[in-house]
Amino acid sequence: MSRQSNRTTDSKKMNSELFTLTYGALVTQLCKDYENDEEVNKQLDKMGYNIGVRLIEDFLARSSIGRCQDFRETADVIAKVAFKMYLGVTPSVTNWSPAGDEFSLILENNPLVDFVELPDNHSTLVYSNLLCGVLRGALEMVQMAVDVKFSQDTLRGDNVTEIRMKFIKRIEENLPAGDE
Amino acid sequence: MSRQSNRTTDSKKMNSELFTLTYGALVTQLCKDYENDEEVNKQLDKMGYNIGVRLIEDFLARSSIGRCQDFRETADVIAKVAFKMYLGVTPSVTNWSPAGDEFSLILENNPLVDFVELPDNHSTLVYSNLLCGVLRGALEMVQMAVDVKFSQDTLRGDNVTEIRMKFIKRIEENLPAGDE
Repeated sequence: MSRQSNRTTDSKKMNSELFTLTYGALVTQLCKDYENDEEVNKQLDKMGYNIGVRLIEDFLARSSIGRCQDFRETADVIAKVAFKMYLGVTPSVTNWSPAGDEFSLILENNPLVDFVELPDNHSTLVYSNLLCGVLRGALEMVQMAVDVKFSQDTLRGDNVTEIRMKFIKRIEENLPAGDE
Repeated sequence: MSRQSNRTTDSKKMNSELFTLTYGALVTQLCKDYENDEEVNKQLDKMGYNIGVRLIEDFLARSSIGRCQDFRETADVIAKVAFKMYLGVTPSVTNWSPAGDEFSLILENNPLVDFVELPDNHSTLVYSNLLCGVLRGALEMVQMAVDVKFSQDTLRGDNVTEIRMKFIKRIEENLPAGDE
């Protein structure tokens, strides 16, 4: 499906429930389409990536946020601005690695899993994996290669949902020929 | 995917763009899965129906709205409360049939189609058809059988998006044995 970016940036605030249920329909469809959870997880990550590379433009336009100075600032912007903007929740940023290249986003409340209970035969499904792809895709567009994965999930009985983010490298900008 | 309704009714307000792009991923997936637009349209309607029958409970809890007196009141509640709540937009209610059993919801701005342009080979795709299913499913749960379909769509070059709703009948409540 090709997409235009001719929309304005006027904001349409909505409750999350229709989104949550629509996301559930997407995951259910993928579970029908692919043989195992591993494939569904991959597909969700890939879809998320494609969403992230588009969403970043909207995010930058809406938030007026410029280039982050370091990974700590990036973490704060993701948690306090991006999650708040697109999911209506603000995860806490925690569990920094000593080198400052890894942190966790802790979600007390993951809107994607409202109404959801994993069936027994999908014990390895990473239900919300789309989010990892979104983060990866969006950050790639601002020249940051990151590794993103769920390390805790309330759907699997953990008390919170934890997304672990690891900085890999800064991506060199490929300037179009003729540009400075 | 089975779902629980153990979430609270605290509201998570979010911008619509992540939802819009996720919905796009769902439609794209269905276009891969099914042979033709007609099948995709059917599937979207069916998914929407399943969402509607769940969403109505959340809607009634959040809105504290009781039984509507007539179809005109239903129309107003859908446009001014439900669309506003779950999509962040308020369509206008118009084009009533003389008998008062049909009306149109006119959306100046359909959040589902931000970023979207239909490819030439999907000219009969009713991209936002999920919404028809949602309305049909939700209203069925409050004992109203309705027919819902898109009659105009900005994606096809119309100036506005128009959802046509037709009242079919009131559904008899099947009371559980032993109830009054």
